[in-house]
Amino acid sequence: MRHKLINEAPERTFALVFERGDEVVSTLQRFAAEQGLTASRFTAIGAFETAALGYFDWEKKDYERIPVEEQVEVLTLAGDVALHGTEPKVHAHVVLGRRDGSTLGGHLLEARVRPTLEVVLVDAPGHLCREHDPVSGLALIRIRS
Amino acid sequence: MRHKLINEAPERTFALVFERGDEVVSTLQRFAAEQGLTASRFTAIGAFETAALGYFDWEKKDYERIPVEEQVEVLTLAGDVALHGTEPKVHAHVVLGRRDGSTLGGHLLEARVRPTLEVVLVDAPGHLCREHDPVSGLALIRIRS
Amino acid sequence: MRHKLINEAPERTFALVFERGDEVVSTLQRFAAEQGLTASRFTAIGAFETAALGYFDWEKKDYERIPVEEQVEVLTLAGDVALHGTEPKVHAHVVLGRRDGSTLGGHLLEARVRPTLEVVLVDAPGHLCREHDPVSGLALIRIRS
Repeated sequence: MRHKLINEAPERTFALVFERGDEVVSTLQRFAAEQGLTASRFTAIGAFETAALGYFDWEKKDYERIPVEEQVEVLTLAGDVALHGTEPKVHAHVVLGRRDGSTLGGHLLEARVRPTLEVVLVDAPGHLCREHDPVSGLALIRIRS
Repeated sequence: MRHKLINEAPERTFALVFERGDEVVSTLQRFAAEQGLTASRFTAIGAFETAALGYFDWEKKDYERIPVEEQVEVLTLAGDVALHGTEPKVHAHVVLGRRDGSTLGGHLLEARVRPTLEVVLVDAPGHLCREHDPVSGLALIRIRS
Repeated sequence: MRHKLINEAPERTFALVFERGDEVVSTLQRFAAEQGLTASRFTAIGAFETAALGYFDWEKKDYERIPVEEQVEVLTLAGDVALHGTEPKVHAHVVLGRRDGSTLGGHLLEARVRPTLEVVLVDAPGHLCREHDPVSGLALIRIRS
């Protein structure tokens, strides 16, 4: 994955271009840490060779895993970055398109790019923080009044 | 729903974090009025406990209602805010993900959040206005030359 | 299609409002050339009367065409603009919603608007460039280190 800063201030805008074989979630996570992101959003289009999606089971309080073992178009990958403790944490959802135009989607657990993924990420100067939510068991963004 | 301004100028960027039970459309609508939004766009991810989607029937000139009575991932919620008369009006479409990874979508009529919805909304200094369109019966954004 | 500049600097934000009958890809392409876009992203919602989607067949190195011959909601249209040689080139993916709430999606080859398409496009001051990729046969965004 290579990146380029295409706007510097007051919000930083980055283009991130993934290459064949790049794993999306871990690469985004590493980028977020390296750049010190504190309050970002992103959208992307491209294609995956394989992916794993998640559906949050409200009874089990855990993600059910949905494997995707075919070449798919990335119709929209959307997400945000907020701090969890001192580290930025990436959260992304995705809609995928199959050969016949039907679609699949979920929380993005992991994905392998082929041939490209084009991400535009904008980082705001503010800060957003995640905190453990005892009801869902998830780390949710918490804004204090 | 709680909000935080994460960038002040020239465009205002807000993070809006919805909590369990919040109704999305009416809450966004109230926020738009309180903040005096005039030309905004937003994207969001999260999850709903229930929702009602609309499909615009071109013959009847009305929305057909599609109820969603199950926990779903919000894969992408996208929309805009423009003025209708003197009041800002929210317009949003959504793609939802089910337990098996299949998807549903439409015009967002209403939705109940569980456990969270993370929205990033950017308000531009310009103005956009909706006007009644006699052909479709809808209030469409009208840009004058 | 009519457009309005709703923020001037450092990134230019445009609202683009398409009317019934407008073809989306060629109109976006013409707008990109007229405005001299060099590094943009956009998202949109609205509705189409007809569309043609593409699925990139990795073996054939070509798009399979998926015709859509019904009125559909545009749930999310997302994409970017980068330079290919000296000309800006539009790349867009779309998720469409049918009468029963089921969805379709793919690379956007062409589409006819009915009654509206509301696009917000942000152009950054930086430059992004596409180059022919011999492995996929596609023009991919290339960032040099």
